[in-house]
Amino acid sequence: MPRKVVIGVMGGGEGAPPQALRDAYRLGELIAEQGWVLLNGGRNVGVMDASAAGAQSKGGWVVGILPDADTRHASPHVDICILTGMGSARNVINVLSSDVVIACAGEEGTVSEVALALKHGKAVIALNFDLGNLFAKARATGQLLSASTPEEAIELVRQVLTSEDQTRAAPTT
Amino acid sequence: MPRKVVIGVMGGGEGAPPQALRDAYRLGELIAEQGWVLLNGGRNVGVMDASAAGAQSKGGWVVGILPDADTRHASPHVDICILTGMGSARNVINVLSSDVVIACAGEEGTVSEVALALKHGKAVIALNFDLGNLFAKARATGQLLSASTPEEAIELVRQVLTSEDQTRAAPTT
Amino acid sequence: MPRKVVIGVMGGGEGAPPQALRDAYRLGELIAEQGWVLLNGGRNVGVMDASAAGAQSKGGWVVGILPDADTRHASPHVDICILTGMGSARNVINVLSSDVVIACAGEEGTVSEVALALKHGKAVIALNFDLGNLFAKARATGQLLSASTPEEAIELVRQVLTSEDQTRAAPTT
Amino acid sequence: MPRKVVIGVMGGGEGAPPQALRDAYRLGELIAEQGWVLLNGGRNVGVMDASAAGAQSKGGWVVGILPDADTRHASPHVDICILTGMGSARNVINVLSSDVVIACAGEEGTVSEVALALKHGKAVIALNFDLGNLFAKARATGQLLSASTPEEAIELVRQVLTSEDQTRAAPTT
Repeated sequence: MPRKVVIGVMGGGEGAPPQALRDAYRLGELIAEQGWVLLNGGRNVGVMDASAAGAQSKGGWVVGILPDADTRHASPHVDICILTGMGSARNVINVLSSDVVIACAGEEGTVSEVALALKHGKAVIALNFDLGNLFAKARATGQLLSASTPEEAIELVRQVLTSEDQTRAAPTT
Repeated sequence: MPRKVVIGVMGGGEGAPPQALRDAYRLGELIAEQGWVLLNGGRNVGVMDASAAGAQSKGGWVVGILPDADTRHASPHVDICILTGMGSARNVINVLSSDVVIACAGEEGTVSEVALALKHGKAVIALNFDLGNLFAKARATGQLLSASTPEEAIELVRQVLTSEDQTRAAPTT
Repeated sequence: MPRKVVIGVMGGGEGAPPQALRDAYRLGELIAEQGWVLLNGGRNVGVMDASAAGAQSKGGWVVGILPDADTRHASPHVDICILTGMGSARNVINVLSSDVVIACAGEEGTVSEVALALKHGKAVIALNFDLGNLFAKARATGQLLSASTPEEAIELVRQVLTSEDQTRAAPTT
Repeated sequence: MPRKVVIGVMGGGEGAPPQALRDAYRLGELIAEQGWVLLNGGRNVGVMDASAAGAQSKGGWVVGILPDADTRHASPHVDICILTGMGSARNVINVLSSDVVIACAGEEGTVSEVALALKHGKAVIALNFDLGNLFAKARATGQLLSASTPEEAIELVRQVLTSEDQTRAAPTT
């Protein structure tokens, strides 16, 4: 039985802009429809909650990597809570555990996840998220990509997965 | 949609005794049959690999919390690899993320997980695992229980889940 | 300039028994007198606070590895606070960073530290701390030693450091 | 006895530019001359090694927070090695443990540290490190500052420490 494809969706928490929330919900739907597992930071706010709700609405599986040691602030749309009790150190786990990372608009926490993902060789797709002129090298090599719609982001994920000659097949829904 | 029940199975790695491997495989089967998610340390040896194989043989979901930053040493029976890159610090995540912890025979790593689980208020069921006279207080309060067969361990898990008035219902298989 | 020798002192927090607190204070004094750095869990209770106070009273350096992300609950006797924000995952750091670990009486957290230290090849000296019949293998090989006075524990530390042919010399006070 | 002031110096590893290495060495000297403790990532390359060498040359104390579980790749100029075995998760510890963070030029790892420092409320001084137009909010509030010489960076550190009404006094050298 092949291992599941895990797609990480990162982005803002409490102050996430409406566009990011809409993008995140739609990403969740699309990820579930591909038969992929959605992984995010697991909290009940922002891009985490919205992407989880989208995925769950389509019957997809959602794994949340929480900064907390209990589920009090977990999104109700997370199927499996990974409780780290490690605060922001869990950001590293988020990106290491994702086959591809999609970054919606966010603030410092999200930037840290983009940076850590790139450092550890992960492909990152920035969806309506302006990272300025940082990470020029990753842009030049195609490790950091940009998308302006969730559908475009998913198409890029698919290309990355194919080009990485993934041995893990995505189960069909 | 209710959150999944997650049962952690801990135990020896490379040097795990044959009895622990048999116990672990059977635990995996039984956990899957309950519709619970199996969580373990994710490596391709010992109790981790055996319990994952058992769960997968019954169509259950397996989450592995790996000490590594990549999947090279992951059990092929793990569906979702949580890659921490944190070595033994992931032991804390193992126990925090489990609703109940079952400990098969193991060595220092397993003892650390039992200790951390008890410290964080988790119920622990020692399955054919002699912990000597340590943790007397947890034994007295019923936080640390013992079982001599996988079936007995699962029955204890069920009692713990019920007594904790879990709001998360176990989905039927 | 040689790297400092770092001696970890572990043990109970809020409920540490009086004997453990006396042992810890005296250990702190002795460690400082050797010119070693004292490392502990950094909180303002129990063996952590007592050992830090002892070391500071003799002009020694104290490094506290805190579970918290800020210093609110740090012992006032810690010179350098390493703030992890990682809860019990910092227990791993405590033992990895210590050249030798001395364990005073404690509960589950302390047992987890003894277990993790042994797993990672560190010598552990149990000072008036009954670990039952656990860790028999480490006892047999001399990795786990016992002492009944702080002076005896320090003498064992010295023997371990010598036998490990430490390239790091202990600076004289 | 007042707690030590800890100044974190972050920046590139293997590929750090010569300017960053010169800045780092000089920062180390200046930090030591203030009687502050230098904290960095502890490895024997780049800004970590250079800043440690500078501080040690002036008799200052250097704490290195290593990603590794042993000292094989530690800078010889680190006095106290905090061994995490946690890879990039230690970046969080670097910034939480620093009273103020100075960021020399670096790549993704350094950007992640700047982002995490800002997220956790730390003042960050970018020394000859162009972060593009990211972190505009932190720039506007003065949480993120820029300097073009080590001396200027140290002057900014001093202002931050004063304005934070630090209860921890810096010991005179």
